[in-house]
Formats: sequence, structure tokens, C-alpha cells
Amino acid sequence: MPRFENEPDPVFWELNASLRFDVRLAPYDIRQSRAHARALRGAGVLDDGELEALLGALDRVAAELEGGEFPFEPGDEDVHMAIERRLTEIAGPVGGKIHTGRSRNDQVATDLALFVAERADAGRSLLLDCLERIHALADEHRAAPMPGYTHLQRAQPVTLGHHLLAWFWMLRRDADRFGAARSAAGAMPLGSGALAGINWDLDRAAVAAELGFGSLVENSIDAVSNRDFALDYLGAASTCATHLSRIGAEIVLWSTSEFGFCRPAEEFSSGSSIMPQKMNPDAAELLRARAPRVSADLMTLTGVLHALPLAYSKDLQEDKEPLFDAADAIELGLRALAGMLVGIEFDLERMASAASDEMAAATDVADLLVRRGLPFREAHAVVGGLVRHALEAGIPLSAIPRGELAAFSELLDEEYYEVLRGGEWLASKVSRGGASPEAIAAQLELAAASLAELRG
Amino acid sequence: MPRFENEPDPVFWELNASLRFDVRLAPYDIRQSRAHARALRGAGVLDDGELEALLGALDRVAAELEGGEFPFEPGDEDVHMAIERRLTEIAGPVGGKIHTGRSRNDQVATDLALFVAERADAGRSLLLDCLERIHALADEHRAAPMPGYTHLQRAQPVTLGHHLLAWFWMLRRDADRFGAARSAAGAMPLGSGALAGINWDLDRAAVAAELGFGSLVENSIDAVSNRDFALDYLGAASTCATHLSRIGAEIVLWSTSEFGFCRPAEEFSSGSSIMPQKMNPDAAELLRARAPRVSADLMTLTGVLHALPLAYSKDLQEDKEPLFDAADAIELGLRALAGMLVGIEFDLERMASAASDEMAAATDVADLLVRRGLPFREAHAVVGGLVRHALEAGIPLSAIPRGELAAFSELLDEEYYEVLRGGEWLASKVSRGGASPEAIAAQLELAAASLAELRG
Amino acid sequence: MPRFENEPDPVFWELNASLRFDVRLAPYDIRQSRAHARALRGAGVLDDGELEALLGALDRVAAELEGGEFPFEPGDEDVHMAIERRLTEIAGPVGGKIHTGRSRNDQVATDLALFVAERADAGRSLLLDCLERIHALADEHRAAPMPGYTHLQRAQPVTLGHHLLAWFWMLRRDADRFGAARSAAGAMPLGSGALAGINWDLDRAAVAAELGFGSLVENSIDAVSNRDFALDYLGAASTCATHLSRIGAEIVLWSTSEFGFCRPAEEFSSGSSIMPQKMNPDAAELLRARAPRVSADLMTLTGVLHALPLAYSKDLQEDKEPLFDAADAIELGLRALAGMLVGIEFDLERMASAASDEMAAATDVADLLVRRGLPFREAHAVVGGLVRHALEAGIPLSAIPRGELAAFSELLDEEYYEVLRGGEWLASKVSRGGASPEAIAAQLELAAASLAELRG
Amino acid sequence: MPRFENEPDPVFWELNASLRFDVRLAPYDIRQSRAHARALRGAGVLDDGELEALLGALDRVAAELEGGEFPFEPGDEDVHMAIERRLTEIAGPVGGKIHTGRSRNDQVATDLALFVAERADAGRSLLLDCLERIHALADEHRAAPMPGYTHLQRAQPVTLGHHLLAWFWMLRRDADRFGAARSAAGAMPLGSGALAGINWDLDRAAVAAELGFGSLVENSIDAVSNRDFALDYLGAASTCATHLSRIGAEIVLWSTSEFGFCRPAEEFSSGSSIMPQKMNPDAAELLRARAPRVSADLMTLTGVLHALPLAYSKDLQEDKEPLFDAADAIELGLRALAGMLVGIEFDLERMASAASDEMAAATDVADLLVRRGLPFREAHAVVGGLVRHALEAGIPLSAIPRGELAAFSELLDEEYYEVLRGGEWLASKVSRGGASPEAIAAQLELAAASLAELRG
Repeated sequence: MPRFENEPDPVFWELNASLRFDVRLAPYDIRQSRAHARALRGAGVLDDGELEALLGALDRVAAELEGGEFPFEPGDEDVHMAIERRLTEIAGPVGGKIHTGRSRNDQVATDLALFVAERADAGRSLLLDCLERIHALADEHRAAPMPGYTHLQRAQPVTLGHHLLAWFWMLRRDADRFGAARSAAGAMPLGSGALAGINWDLDRAAVAAELGFGSLVENSIDAVSNRDFALDYLGAASTCATHLSRIGAEIVLWSTSEFGFCRPAEEFSSGSSIMPQKMNPDAAELLRARAPRVSADLMTLTGVLHALPLAYSKDLQEDKEPLFDAADAIELGLRALAGMLVGIEFDLERMASAASDEMAAATDVADLLVRRGLPFREAHAVVGGLVRHALEAGIPLSAIPRGELAAFSELLDEEYYEVLRGGEWLASKVSRGGASPEAIAAQLELAAASLAELRG
Repeated sequence: MPRFENEPDPVFWELNASLRFDVRLAPYDIRQSRAHARALRGAGVLDDGELEALLGALDRVAAELEGGEFPFEPGDEDVHMAIERRLTEIAGPVGGKIHTGRSRNDQVATDLALFVAERADAGRSLLLDCLERIHALADEHRAAPMPGYTHLQRAQPVTLGHHLLAWFWMLRRDADRFGAARSAAGAMPLGSGALAGINWDLDRAAVAAELGFGSLVENSIDAVSNRDFALDYLGAASTCATHLSRIGAEIVLWSTSEFGFCRPAEEFSSGSSIMPQKMNPDAAELLRARAPRVSADLMTLTGVLHALPLAYSKDLQEDKEPLFDAADAIELGLRALAGMLVGIEFDLERMASAASDEMAAATDVADLLVRRGLPFREAHAVVGGLVRHALEAGIPLSAIPRGELAAFSELLDEEYYEVLRGGEWLASKVSRGGASPEAIAAQLELAAASLAELRG
Repeated sequence: MPRFENEPDPVFWELNASLRFDVRLAPYDIRQSRAHARALRGAGVLDDGELEALLGALDRVAAELEGGEFPFEPGDEDVHMAIERRLTEIAGPVGGKIHTGRSRNDQVATDLALFVAERADAGRSLLLDCLERIHALADEHRAAPMPGYTHLQRAQPVTLGHHLLAWFWMLRRDADRFGAARSAAGAMPLGSGALAGINWDLDRAAVAAELGFGSLVENSIDAVSNRDFALDYLGAASTCATHLSRIGAEIVLWSTSEFGFCRPAEEFSSGSSIMPQKMNPDAAELLRARAPRVSADLMTLTGVLHALPLAYSKDLQEDKEPLFDAADAIELGLRALAGMLVGIEFDLERMASAASDEMAAATDVADLLVRRGLPFREAHAVVGGLVRHALEAGIPLSAIPRGELAAFSELLDEEYYEVLRGGEWLASKVSRGGASPEAIAAQLELAAASLAELRG
Repeated sequence: MPRFENEPDPVFWELNASLRFDVRLAPYDIRQSRAHARALRGAGVLDDGELEALLGALDRVAAELEGGEFPFEPGDEDVHMAIERRLTEIAGPVGGKIHTGRSRNDQVATDLALFVAERADAGRSLLLDCLERIHALADEHRAAPMPGYTHLQRAQPVTLGHHLLAWFWMLRRDADRFGAARSAAGAMPLGSGALAGINWDLDRAAVAAELGFGSLVENSIDAVSNRDFALDYLGAASTCATHLSRIGAEIVLWSTSEFGFCRPAEEFSSGSSIMPQKMNPDAAELLRARAPRVSADLMTLTGVLHALPLAYSKDLQEDKEPLFDAADAIELGLRALAGMLVGIEFDLERMASAASDEMAAATDVADLLVRRGLPFREAHAVVGGLVRHALEAGIPLSAIPRGELAAFSELLDEEYYEVLRGGEWLASKVSRGGASPEAIAAQLELAAASLAELRG
């Protein structure tokens, strides 16, 4: 750049050069340049021959990049400059025309929007795989009893299918979040120049259509300053990663000797370097462990944008690494979850046994009293007394003799023992969204419909 | 609670009690209880007299809370228990019936969803105020030249109106984010009980309709475990706060003696305790400063949810303070911005003078060469040489004599001086979204249409 | 402030006024003013009578604040201005002399440093309480076997005392972190004025000595710009809170029916609003849940300082709320832990039973082979084969018949069964820091010595 | 691993394998293995020949790694397993003995502690380079006036040297933070086995001495669970990066046309792809921009540790990437700062001119009134009135006629004009740490002494 007399300092070069990571944007950069070249033709900046030369050279650059044969040079500051340099080597001086009416500022914003749009679509698609697998598992185990937990204490029985459907809805919402990020990335920055617009009235709408953008960024300053669509993607990824971490934490927990509810497939487990007997749920642990990193990626970009004056500042170069990192982490996480849910084995017997704890019916006893007219708060107190008595006596609730019941409440009779006999606990949760067979069946249908909508 | 024999430890009480902050949920809790009571009537748990008694007592509780006369007691663990206690004091034992078919787990999730829905609406409404003010200012100053900056270096001229419209679009997107959070908070958790559903088939759809929910959470475990809608709100608030920080940073910068582009109104400035001459842009500084706090609120809740097994855990109590903090911060920030933009004075003359720097036309000179057939990259090099020459000679670009131009490029002639004469720099940015008068006029219309859509 | 003609806008006032939270700095502000008044006397700005009048008035202000009788007024922007106003009301015009040679900029930095120093000391002291309790528990249970876990899978037996000592060392390190924050807060900003120093050579060293500072901030710009000591405190609090969350998570886990290793005291547990049988480990859950909030407080201040030019900017007002929040959270957390560890009951029998799983000796079998000359990696493979065989046959390792052993390795003989007989597993971990009785005894002594050092 | 029958799933392998990044630990792993082998010899596990064979093979592995000729294989899960595999290929079955009495759990913790210790030392050393450069610059410009800013408004004059010394002290504190991280990383985990200690009483103290550790981790569970030293390093890096961002932000600001206080060296600047006249302070922008990423690295590891039960969990594998990223970012940032401060040019004339604004003496006028007996608060009000009058009249303070002064205060006389004449403003800031020549000279000496201490 002739304004400069001196070579960049090597330390500055190391700090400034982004080729190491932004090479990943190459496919988008080439797609963009193709469309931009056509727009330059439309505006008369290029003639037919020049356009053809540029498109041909772009094809060759693309092939070189795909084939790993692109001749990078030490002086390539970023992927955009590397491609333009190569273009000129291949096509001659006409290569230098590609940057007419374009600045790296709108160019990089456009590449990034294309990247985000593609990753958001990929996120939705990977979520769909997970959701289909979870739905199938939930259907299979819709009637298998397991303890429901609050505070990690056994609370009331549910079924494994019902629990898995809770996972389903968490991830189903994430698909909508990625969808919103997709929309946010759907406005094209290109055609905004450095920040003030450009000296040619290129047909931005045609370029957008070719590149798959649904709309245009309508302000040239905003176009080069804005990274909101990346924040939206990172927000979706952060919430989705947090969901994966909750699911991973449950699988880790269920895989303990103490719970013993499931056994991850060997194909998703590791041994120990020192303890030959170990089979560890590493995949589930890593699902759990990677959420903070994705959230931190969101924090990085949010922090970079904090207090940053418009329009483009070099700080925005720090947008790419957190974005790439989050995309890789969340996509691998979703693929791992889908894979894990194939070979995982549930110990349904052990779950059922844990779910048969009589204590889980305490609320049902209280509700029995309510049906006999006692206000719930008083019924709760009565059953609390029964529970304490049973614990102190070291007996189950059902072993409190008939004759002693009246001391707790006159309203208690034989039906007390019936309520405790189990079997009906699940059936009694008749409310919409509840654990009864009918409610779960209805829920499975709603989930299936929601999947169909997502498949779209 | 009769299962317990001992009083809670005072330290535990301090840790556990949430009344200090969750009292803010009282209005939602009462609305919810009214709707829930009606559903209990529908299910036959209450008779007409009991329903009337409960509704009357709820009215009185609401009045006491609004009037600041609600008799809180040391034993009130949270706002839900305080209200139920008071209800029973007022209505007698029937008060104890309100908690039939409801758990604090679905109750608090419902209160929180109502809160988020209301704050999301408020966010959109406050954004509308700001957007209308910015649009008016942008319209007023659509033609006032100011330097456009990249890297905080003067780059190309734009107009103040064009720059303000960049603010407009940033905040306009935030309105959609709050809209998405509003939708996410539109599914009602109530009717899910502790986690497994409830023993009565209450008419959840009717309750939802009364409370303004558009749909139901379809899985009872998800209903009490899910705080995604709060993450969505916090995400919207975090991005919006980051936008406010960028705007605040620009006002701080423009208010310096060195820039001198604007002067905040006295009503939004502070003096110094020691330096009598100072008038500081405190409001703008605080707009800038509060984004990290809102982002941190998002991180808090994301962190709380990380690796948290389903269903309800006490950890979820940590959802409220970050949410309340973020809502207060973002709403006050938006009100402050709307207020600041009333009295702010722009020094249009100083802006125009700063925008008249001949160097800003360097790209236009390059584009002149492009129009004469030189590839842009070569034209860029030619102008770089001119710039270096002018800087070294300590003269403006236009002071390079006609005779010397050819040494830089044979394509340079008299038009070189015309391009540098200014006046046309803005007009030349003809691209859609650019800084030309026509493009700005079109943009103002699109912005107005977008405002109308938001006003709904 | 006479430079200003207009009253602040109410919205600006709401944004700007910090009295709501900075009133907490009042005691430090008064201590500081006492010392500053004495320095003003030393420099001849005050005479003896004026000094006495100011000190007397400061006493009265302090008493009013402590007694809750301080007459705050709507126009009080912050605690510093409120106190100075009141001082003047009490002492007359001489009250206006207290701000000679001082700016709010160095004043507030000094208050904050005093606060941080005090909280850092409090953190160390509360940690000492926890550490003493943990040490006593570890001593008591030094020989009680429990399973050691990796990947939450049973790995090798340890003792409860050994595990509790792991908690001990985590928290012991935190005491050093708070100590470092204490040192960082030990340099006095006061005497730096707004940013450039002051017009009087007040005896800063004497003021520092009176206020308990060990040194002076040696640059007046740094003095008003620096909040590093607050970052140090927040860093210590964040790491300590993370430790509490790990401990809380273990107590929650151990309190499940499935693990059954401990039962938190009733005094630190809660019931359910709907399920009468529940006793939930709420205190442990909240220990776990509050780490993200404290880390977010650190992120808030780090974010506020990011890219902030020197010297004082109003952004720094955002230092106080995260600091106060973190201090309250960590101190309450430490008090809760100390309290929880009093009444907690361990089910030593259940722990011992879980620790007696023969599989835990697999490494010891491998080590037997190593002692007979087999490289460890090969020994690991041999035992891996034994484990798989036992699992497939559904028998314990010790039930593999003597005659079949040679098929796995010629080196296996009767000692194989001895190694599996248990009892010796703990004793075999003879390395320093290991789980053998001798090593644990040595560790307890080192821990005791470390406690003594902390007690100072 | 014979316990396993099936190959890992490719997706699991991708998630689980850490070789891609942990290869960076290879040099530490080899140093560690050398020391561990010697300890195994001491305990009789190896004989002399075996030790020699292992050490020789380790040398060869080290050479292969350094030379880029190490034959990695697809099945290498991590760097530890790759090295052990290669060791066995080179040395034969004795290679399998190296893992006796060691687990990957204590092995990786030890590698990481070695890495952190080295990076902490490097951080201190790079800080020393920066500090020396800043000290020299501050010495050179100790008397060059520039405006001091609060709220980014000109407040009182300081000197460039004084301002640079504020940078000095910020970074000087960071050296102590890295020092604390160095100490925290100075306790050796090795010898703790998987979590329970090991079956050999290896001489841990000797191993520690060979590896440069100052002490031992005294609890084997803590040894494999603890990553506090990494948090300490990340905390130091986060604060240091925040300091770099403040310095970077000031250089960006000072480099604007509007401030014009400095010009970064060309070697640390970039041009524009479209605007030939641009020379942008990219290096300073990147210094500013990279703090959020380093803080996010800290948040990542803090988040990973949140609620994580002891002892080792696979989640801890997520410790490395944030650590490596932060180390690279902070070291490159420090090298960039040191480099930037070589060629940076200050426009001392422009600074001096900006510092000569008469308004900056307003506090000095107030202090004149104080010396004549007026309480400061009243003097502040008097000068506020003078300022407003001057602004409204559009004249400088010194242009208020002598005859009008009494209307503001009877205490004003000719000295008013002397105070405003400037020249003495800097000299008047006589307090320790202030902007007077004497105070700055003293400060430079203290800074030099502090540097000497750091040099050690």
C-alpha cells in the first residue's frame, strides 16, 4: 500500500493477520465475489470478457482452496487479500477490478452473515436429528416408571418417556432460536462500501437474491458496524449448549453405580489409564462441560462490541474466533447427543423400583383429604405428621395401623391404604402435560406435530 | 411444616428466604391466584361461596400490597407463602384451599413468565419512544455533513442524519428481540404441579386465556425446569444494553473539547465536586457503563442452569435478581436515552468543518481512475502515492500541481481537482443505504414504515 | 452548582444518583473525613477550633447514620454529598472546608479501598471458621471408608476424612487469595485530588497510617482510575464461590436417596409446598447456585473497565453494586457452610458398603502384576480382561476360579484373592498425600499447621 | 483397553480426543516422565538398564516432537497416550512401565502446572519489557504538559510523563498477579495417582525438585480435582488484558484527527482496502479488543468448575484451550505494546496547546479563595458563577474585568489573573503523587526502584 513506506513489524503482523482463522470464510468470499462481479458487469464496470475472466479465475481459486493447493504467501494479511492477490495472478490486472465498489468492511460483514446463516440452518438440522431420536425413545418408554426429582430428591413418579419429552421441548425451542438467528443474518451488508455507500448504484437486490439473502441492510454505517446477527447465533448456541449440559449432567448422574438408571454405549465411553475396571461416561461429561465455553464465546463478542464507536473498528476482527468456536462446539455436541442416544441402555427395572417408593404418594394422600373437604394447606400438615411418624417409627406409611389414623385426621380411612398401594400414582396425574398415560399420549402427538413443522 | 421438628437456622433463613426480592412478583401472584381459584371452582374443588371469599380476600391482599400496608412477618419465606398466609388470615381456612392442584414450582414459573412478558412489552414500548425521537432527529439533520469514521479515523463524509439512522436500525432490531422473548414467555407453566402434573384436570386453557398466555407448556417437568424465556429476555436486554453503550460512547466522544460535535443538555450532565468549570456527560457515560452488568445478568442465569438436573432445583431461585436487575437497567437506560435526545445540541458547523477534509475524497479520486479503466487495486495504489506525496510536502491533495499529476497516473486530469472540491462527495454515494441525499430520503421512509409496523 | 442553570432531569437523576447503594460506604467516608480533617489542620487549612467543630459534627453524623436517623434529602446525589451537606448543617460554613484538597474522585476510591480491605479480612476470618470445622470433621472421620470417584464412577476407596481434607485445601487457598486482595487494597488513593494531585502538601502518610493503609498510590491519575483491588477481591470471591458450589454439589448428591451418604440438618433444609414428605437440601443447592452470580460480578467490573480511558469516568460508579453483591453472597455462603457442617449427619455404614466394591481393587491387582515384573500397561490389559470376563459371567472378580487365572496371566496366584479381599486397599495407598492411614495422619498435621499460620 | 469390546464411535472420538490441542503439553510431559522414571528407579520398579532405556527413548521422542517428525497415529487419544505408545515402540515393553504409579489424572495436572508456571514467568518478563519502555518514555516526557481528563472532559493539566506513569503502575501490579499465579502453580500434583494416592512411596519431593516445583499438593483428591492455579493465571491475564485495553483505547483516541496527540508507527498501522488515505491504529485497536476474550477464557474455566463434584471428571479437559488462548493473547499483546511504544510519535505541541485552556485553572481559583478563608464549597460556588458568566459572555475567565470581580467575591483581586496566567498550574500540584515536577521526579525514582525489584 503505497501510502506506507515501512513494512509491518513482525509482532504487529502476528497480531493483525487473521488469515490463520478467517481462511474458513473463503467459500463465502468466493460466492460473494461471483455475485459482486455480476453486479459490476450490470453497472458497466466490467465488460463481458472481464466478467468471464473473473468468474473463471474465481472457479480456479475455489478449486485450489478446496484441494488444499492454494498458494498462500507470508504477506497475505487475510483471506480476502489472499484471494484477491491470487485472482490477479490468475486473471491478470482485471483481478484488481473485483474490489471496485466494495470495501473489506462490507465484504467481511457479508461473508460472516453467510457463515452465520449456514450454521444456523445446520443447527436446526442437527437439532432435528436429536429431536427425532428423543421422540422415538420417549415413545418407546412412555409407560416406564421412574422417579421424578425435585431438589434431586425423589418427589413423584413420572415415566422415562415423560422425562425424555422434557428434553424434547428444551431442544425444540432451540430450533426456533437458531431460526431467529437465521433471519437476523438474512440482511445483506454488501454494497455499503467502507461505511458511506459506494459510487456505483450496483443492483444490491440482485446480489442478495443470488446469495440467498432475504433483505438488505438499509444503512451503510450500520452495515459495517453491526454484528448483532452473530450475537443472535451465539445466544442460540449458548442456550442450546446449556440444554446439552443439563442432559449430559443427567446421563452422568444416571450412569453412577448409585443411580444405575442407564449405561452409555461403550462407543461413547472411555476407560482409565490406571484403573482397568473403569468405563466412564466421557461423552456425557463433555456435553456437560462445553456450555461455559459457548457462553463465553457470546460474552467475548458482547464485550468486544461494548462501548465501540461506529462504524468499522479493527476490534470487529475479534468476532470470528468465538463464532467459529461456538459453531464447532454446538454442532459436535448435537451430533454426539444424537449418537449417544442410539446405544444408551436404560435399566428400566431399576428405575421402576426407585419409583415405587411409597413416600412419593404423600401428595396423593393430601389430595385425598382435599377431596374430602380439608383445605390443602391443612391436608399437607396432616400428611407431614404421618410422614414424620413413619420415619421415626422406621416403618412405611402403609404400616401405620388403621386404628392410629384418626389421631392424624378423622377423614382418613381405608382409602388411605389404597392410595398408597401405588399403580394409580401415575394415572392420577391427569392434567394436561402431566404424567398420566393419556396426557403423555397427547403430548407425544403434539411433539410429533411440532417435529413435522420443523421438518417444514 | 409438620415433617420438620426444628426451626430453620437463622443463617439458612437468610440464605433461603427470597421475600426481599421476590415481593416484586406479588401482582403477578395475585393475578395468577385469581385465575387458579376460578379453575378450582370449575373443577369443583371450590364452591361459589368459597370462590367469592377467596377472590374478595385476594382483592384485599392486593390493596394492602399496593398501599404498602401488607403485614409481612419474619416467618414469610417468600412472597407466595406470605400471600397465602395472609389470605388465610383474611378468609379463614378456605385460604388453605388456594394451593390445591398447584405447587410453588409451577406457581413461581408462572409468575416469572408473566413478569417477563410484561417487561418485554415495556422494552418494546420504550424502544419505540427512542426510535421516534431518533427518527425525528435524523430527519432534521438528514443533510448535515459530518465525518464518517472507521478505526476512529476520518474516512468519508456522511451526514448526521445518516449516522443517527444507524442508531435507529440497531435499536429497531432490539424491538424484535424483545418480541421474541415475549413469545417465549407466552406459554403457561401453571397446572404442572411440582413436576408430574396434578390430580385435577383443571382447565389450563381457560386459565391461560385469563392470564394472557397464548399457549401452554406441554410437559410438566419442562414447565418447572425451564427458564429459557428469561434467558431470551436477558439476551435481548444484553444486546440492547450493548447498543446503548455504543451510543453512549459516541456521545461521550462527541462531547469532548477535541471533537466538539455535541453538548448534552445540562439536565443530563453533572458537575465536579472540585472543578467548578466541569460539565460532564454523566448520562452518556452511564449508558455506556451499564452494558457489562446486563450481560453479566445473562451470564448469571446461564451459569445457574449449566449442568442442572431436572426438574426444579432450588438453584432456580437465583433467576430473579439478575432478571430484575437487567429489566431495571435496560428500562432506565432507554428512558434516559429518549430524554437525552431531547435537549442535546449538535454543533453542525464544527461537524461540517471536520467533514470537509479533502483526504476524505481519496476513494473518490480512485474511483475516478476506475471509471477511466484502471483496475481498482491499481487506482488505490496511485492515490496512495498522491497521499504520501501530499503529506510529505505538507500540502493538501489539491495543491499538487497539474503538471505533476502525470507522474502518478496518465489518467489524471482537471477532473482530479473537481473531485477534490467537495460538495459532491456525499452525492456520489448513490448506492442504496448510502450517504447521498436520495438514498437517505429513501432510508427515512423505510424507517418510518418500520416504525409504523412496530407501533402495530 | 452555580455553573448549572437547570435542575437535573428526573430520569437522569434516577440514573445518576448512587445514594441508594453507596450509602453503604458511609462509615468509611466518615473515617476518611476525620483523617482528612486532621491533615487539613496539619497543613494549616483548618485551625484547632475548626478541626474540633468538624470532628464533633462528624461524630454526630456517624451517630445519626448508625441510628437510622440521618435526614436524607431528595437532592442528595450520593453518600459523600449527603454527608457534606449534613456536616454543614451541623457545623455551619466550616463544613464546607472538609472538601478542601479532596475530590470525590479520590474520596470514593479511598472509601472503596477501605471497604475491600475490610471485606477481604472478613473473608479470611469466615474461611477460618469453615476450615476449623472441616478439619475437625476430617479428623473425626479420618478412617471412615467411602468410595473415591472419578467421572462420578466409583474408582478407588478413600476415607471421608481424606475427601473432606480436599475441601480443606481448596478453601485454604482462598484465604491466600483474599490476603492478596487485602494487600492490593492497602494503598491509599486519598490526596490525589480529581486526578492531578492537590494544591496542598497534606501529610498523606499520616492519613494512611490513621486509616490503616500500608502504602500510598504513587500516581494521582492511577489513584482515581484504578479499581484493580476490587477486581482482586472479586477474583478471590469468584474462585471461593466456585469452591462452595463444588462442595454444595457434593452435598446435594450425597443427600439423594440413591447415594444416601449424608443428611443435611433439618435446620438447613426446606420442605415442599405440595409434597409433605420432602426434605430438600436447599442450603447446599444455594451454595451451588450462587457461584455464577459472583463470577458475573467479576465480569461486570472487568467489563466496565474494558477500554475505559483514564482518569476518572462516571462508568466507575458501576463498581459498587457488583462488589457489594459479591461480598454479601460470599460471606453468607461461608457462614452457611460453617453452619451446615455442624448438624450434617453422615451415613458411614452406607459409605463403607459402597466403598467395598471389589472392582475398586482392579488397580491393585494390576500393581501386583507390576511387582512381579510385568510392565504396567500390560498388567492393565490383563486386569481389563479379568474385569470383562467377570462382568460377562455376572460374578465378582474373586469368584474367578484359581484354575482359570493362568489363562489371563501366568503371574497370577493366590495373592490375587488376597488383594481382592479388601481391607488393605486403603493401606496400600502409601504415597504422600494418599489415602493410607499414615498419609492421612500426616496430612491432618500439615493442615493443622496451615490453620495455625492462618490464624496468625 | 481390553475391558472394551467396541471401537469408539467416530463422533465420540472427535469430541473426546484432545491431541489436537494438548500436543502443546508434550515438552512438559516428557520432562515429567524423565523425573517420574528416576523416581521409579528409586523405588525399585525400574532397574538401571530400564531407566537408561526409558531416558534414551524419551530423548528420542523429544527430538521427534521438536523436529516435527513424531509419528502421530489416528488412535492417539491425547498427547500422553501418544508419547507412551511411541516410547514403547522405541524402548520395547519397558515403555509400558513408565505409567506405573501414575495416572493420567495426576499426569495432566502436573503438565498443566508446569505450563502455567512457565507462562506466568513469561508474563512477568514481558511486562518488564513494557515497563522499562514506559519508564523511559515517562522520563523523557516528564515535563511535557497535556490535559488531564475526567469524564473525557479536560479537567486539569498534567504531563505526558505523569500520564504514562499511570500506565506504569497498572502494569506493575500485573507483574505481582502473575507472580501469585506462579506460586499457585508451584505445588506438584504428581504422585497422587488417579485420586487416592499410589501403591509406591515414590520420592515426590525429589521429583518436585527436579521439575522446579516448590511444594507438593498434600491431598491426592485435591491434586487431580484442582485447577485453581489456572484460574489464578487467567485472572492475572484478564486484569492485564483489561489494562492493555485501556492503554489501547487511549492510543486510539489520541490518534484521532480531533485529538491529534500521537501517531502510531507505520509498522504498527494498517491501511484501508478502499480508502487510500487511511492509516489506522490497528494494533492499538486490537490491544483494546482482546480483553473480552481473555476474560471469557477465565469465565470458561470458572464455569467448567462450577458445581463439579470431586475428584477428576472429564470436564476438566476443557481447561486447556482457554488457558492456551489466554496465554497466547496476553503474551502477544504485551509484545505488541512494547513494540508500539518504540516508534510512537507524540505531538507535544498539540498536547501543550490543549493543556493551556484557562478553564483548567478553575480549581486553582477556588483554592485561592480557600487560602483567603472561604470554605471550599463556597469557593467552588463562586468560581462556578465566574465560569457561567464567562461562557455566557463568550470570553475567557481572564477577560472578566477587574471591576466586576467583587460582584462574585470580595476576596478576588489581582492574584485572580495571576492564577489564570498558567505556567504555575502544574507546579501547584505539590502533593505526593501529583503533577508537580518535584512529585513526578520522586515518582520516577520510586518506579525505577520498583522495576529493579521486579528484575530481581
